[in-house]
Parts: sequence; C-alpha cells; structure tokens
Amino acid sequence: MSLLVVGTVAFDSVETPYGKEEMVVGGSAMYIGYSASYFVQDIKMVSIIGDDFSEGELNSMEDKGMNLDGIEKVKGGKSFFWAGKYHDDFNGRDTLVTDLNVLADFDPVLPQHYKDSKYIMLGNLTPDIQISVLDQLNDKPDLVMLDTMNFWINNTPDDLRKVLKRIDILTINDEEARMLSGEHALARAAAKIQAMGPYYIVIKRGEHGALLFYNDKTFFAPALLLQTLIDPTGAGDCFAGGFIGYLAKTQNLSFENMKRAIIHGSALASFCVEDFSNWNIKRLSLDQIDQRVNRFYDLTQFSLV
Amino acid sequence: MSLLVVGTVAFDSVETPYGKEEMVVGGSAMYIGYSASYFVQDIKMVSIIGDDFSEGELNSMEDKGMNLDGIEKVKGGKSFFWAGKYHDDFNGRDTLVTDLNVLADFDPVLPQHYKDSKYIMLGNLTPDIQISVLDQLNDKPDLVMLDTMNFWINNTPDDLRKVLKRIDILTINDEEARMLSGEHALARAAAKIQAMGPYYIVIKRGEHGALLFYNDKTFFAPALLLQTLIDPTGAGDCFAGGFIGYLAKTQNLSFENMKRAIIHGSALASFCVEDFSNWNIKRLSLDQIDQRVNRFYDLTQFSLV
Repeated sequence: MSLLVVGTVAFDSVETPYGKEEMVVGGSAMYIGYSASYFVQDIKMVSIIGDDFSEGELNSMEDKGMNLDGIEKVKGGKSFFWAGKYHDDFNGRDTLVTDLNVLADFDPVLPQHYKDSKYIMLGNLTPDIQISVLDQLNDKPDLVMLDTMNFWINNTPDDLRKVLKRIDILTINDEEARMLSGEHALARAAAKIQAMGPYYIVIKRGEHGALLFYNDKTFFAPALLLQTLIDPTGAGDCFAGGFIGYLAKTQNLSFENMKRAIIHGSALASFCVEDFSNWNIKRLSLDQIDQRVNRFYDLTQFSLV
Repeated sequence: MSLLVVGTVAFDSVETPYGKEEMVVGGSAMYIGYSASYFVQDIKMVSIIGDDFSEGELNSMEDKGMNLDGIEKVKGGKSFFWAGKYHDDFNGRDTLVTDLNVLADFDPVLPQHYKDSKYIMLGNLTPDIQISVLDQLNDKPDLVMLDTMNFWINNTPDDLRKVLKRIDILTINDEEARMLSGEHALARAAAKIQAMGPYYIVIKRGEHGALLFYNDKTFFAPALLLQTLIDPTGAGDCFAGGFIGYLAKTQNLSFENMKRAIIHGSALASFCVEDFSNWNIKRLSLDQIDQRVNRFYDLTQFSLV
C-alpha cells in the first residue's frame, strides 16, 4: 500500500553520555522512511535538502525502498541542521543549534505519482506545510497520521488546529498532550484532543512507553529495558515509521491491529536508540524485528488464571 | 496460608493538590494489611502504637481479618507520625514532620502463634527490626518479601545487606534500586541486587508501573490511568500487600503466578491513590478488584497475529 512521508532530511550533531557525533544524517522523514521500509516499499518521500548531502546516503535510502522524487535538492543550499546535547540521565536535552537553511523556504510540490498515496505520514514540520501536502492529494487517503511538537502548539496554534481536523491519528508526547489540551490527566487530555479531530491519539512517553487512545479504549505498550541507550534522537520518528509502515502493510485499521502497530513502532524505536543516527535502523533484518516484537510480548503478556 | 506483616501503624497529615487531611490513619503495615485482607484472613500484624489510636480504627482492622496480638500498645505513648506535602504535579513530595514517637524503641516480640507463619512481609522499617522478626520464626518460611527505602540504603547499609541475604523478594523504587546497585539501567541494577540475595526484584516506578525481574525474565505492569489521583501515600505498601496476599492465597510461586500477583498488587495500589488514607482500600469488594484486574488485562494484552 502506498505510503507518503513528509518531514526533514537533515544533519545532526549530537552529544550524549555515550559519545559525540558531528554532522551525522538525521531528520524526521529519514528516520520514518527507514523504519517503514521494513514493512512497505516505494515509500514516497517529501522533503528538501541542500547539495551538501552525499550521494551515498541518498542511494542508501533508495536501496531501502524510498522513492526520492519528492525530495527537492537546492543547488548551493545547506540542509537543515540541528545540534543538541542530552543530559547525563537522558531525562532532557538542550538544543544548541537550529539552522533551518533550505527548510526556511520549503514549499513542497508533490510529484504526480505521489498524489494517489493512501497512507500519509506528516512528520513534525510547520502545520501549513502539512496542510499543503494534504491539499495536493487527489483523493481522500485511507489514513493520515501527524506528529507535532510544543513549538507548533505555542507558535502556530491556529494552523495546528486546522490540520488536526484533517487527520486520523496524532502522535504527541505526554507534556505536549497536556499543553495542547490543558488537561494533566492523560486520559482526559486524549479525550479533549480527540474532539479536535483525530480519532486515534498516541501519547509517547519515551522510556515509559506509549499509549493508544480510541474512544473509550486504551492500550499501553512499555518501552523495552535496553542494556545500552546510546542516542534517543529519532526514537519518536522511528516509532511513527514502524507504526504506519505496519498499518500500510497490513491494511487493517481495527483497534486490535493498531495495538500490533504500536508494538512494531516501539520495536523500531528501541533499535534506533541503540546507536547514533540511522546506524542501527538501516541495517536491521526482519528476523531481528520479529525477535524484538516477541520481547514486548514476553514482557507484558499474562493470563488471568 | 498464614501471612505475617511487620511495619508501621501510624498517623499521617497529608497535603496534596486535591486537599489536606490531618492525623489520618497511615503506616506501612496498615496499608499492607488492608490490601492483603482481600486475599487471606488472620493476617498476623506486628507493629507498635501509642494509646492515641482509636478503638474504632483497631476494630475495623480486626473486622477485615487482621490479628492484632502482635501490635504493642504503649501506655501514654504517641504513635509514629508523618506529615508531608505533595508537589503540584505529584512528581515529588516534601516530608514536613517525622516523629518516631513509640517507634523509636520498637523491639518486636512475636506472639507464639505468629512463629509458624509461612508468608512474611517485612514492611519498610529499620533492617535490624526486619532481621529480628526473621530470627524469631520457628521454621524457614515459604516466602519472605521486603520493602526498603533510601534512608536505610544510606544510613544502615551493612544491616540492609544482612537482611537482603535472607529474603526472596525485594520491592524497591527505581531511584533506590539505582542507589543500591550503583547501576542506572534497571535491568543491570536488578541483576546486581539479585546477587545480594533476593531471587525476585520488584522495581516500583509509581505512575509508570512496576517491573518484576527473575533471572533473565522480566515482566512489566503499567499503572492504570486514573481520572482522579487524590493521594499517593501508601500506594507502594498497598502494592506489596496485594502482591503477597495474592501469593499467600494461591500458594504458587511460579513466574506466571508472580505476574498475576503484580497485577493484583497494582490494582490495590490504584484504589489506594483514589482517596486519602485507607478510606478507599478498606471498603472494596472482590468484584471491584476483579474488574480492576480486568482493566489491566485490557490495557496491555494483544495478539501477535
């Protein structure tokens, strides 16, 4: 099933308690694309980069099944750049640099063969870009999933409200869900956000797992206890990529299948944080993913008698 | 199956964002006893109180199946008293008063009919009192569970190490597990603590649930998303009481049954925090508990296909 992914393809410089990496490949669309590539092929990528991106890196994305026709390359431009440093206990991070570069003028134009996509992942970007992508689709897609963050909640609340009305699933972290809804209790926050548009609310809690809300139903998936956490950058995007990739593959939007999608997204996120950049998530096997999904199963399943 | 509970029976003054209650009944043994009372009867309570405790409150404990022969009443003495105030987001609390009172000279003497108890719950107290109780038992019990906290880790580390060698299950919160083991990753922390004595390690994470470790096996139970959190005081003790009560009732120490015990403990904890003091956990029905256990089941269970 055709999956379209909008987001950033970028460079990151990251410092964590485990090391420091300069100018490694990052960006929401990049993480989403790799994570979804284990479930679907011909993923239609929409982004913008400068000419500072190596051909090798782009080829590697194509080899994994990403279609890059929708990635605009700006001659002489520089790709989006983010630098950050994680605290010693990984409980927070400081952003050191945010250089929008070519992203500042991003106005995506979808290639013709992108316009019939049925599964749409709107990675974290300005809401007006997310809206513009939806406007260019020929038909109503089967599923639109959106990721957002505090910056858009605070700075472009009206545009965010507009795009929320047009989506099916929102992924958002717990503090941002509280900010968007004005409710501290997450079940209440989810109910209020549901009234803004999306049927499904996924609340991400980092090392404390993720929650799926749908009407009066709730499902919870923990994060795995990893022996080694190297770099959390991209975990939320890998979660989203695994989630929508699994849904696009199985084409089943029941709550039971959404649970499996959450588990697959959590599995991809767990691989992501075990190394810097895309180093781990670009080299996985389907067997490794299945084994990790089984770890979630063993961690959480019990019988009542 | 005979359950013996050691801990405090006390008064608390508690302030939370939802209100303030002065001199309400508290104490680890009190919370453990009520929670276990839904699974076993004739619970042998070991504690110390002053004569400031109302007969009504003691009768209520007896009515629930607690045997109070092991509760020493000190004439003219005052019961242990704790006062605390929770932060606005419940993410922390400040202790305002700790008056040991009669607890300062607590040297428990077990009644004869307590000494053949097979399930032993050593609530949070000085490790030397916990050791003294174990020394007075006639035979090796079937199961010894111990709860401790940062104060004993820091102030009586040698005594704590001694008692850890004699127990089967340790319940401890995540920060304290890190403190005791010197390891940040919880799986590593559990492995190190296991080497100190207990076969099973239960790491409590408050609103983020609880983890059970046994050799290379791990089980995770989330906390429920409650609409209203009134007062977290006693939640860890109610968890422990539900846990060991369920084990004493079922007399099955397999890992699969330990999972069910964790879920029942979590259910009791979830009731505890919905009101101040013991107000909620003293008035439950078995049906209510079953319904809540089913909520945990619905929240976490999924099928792989």
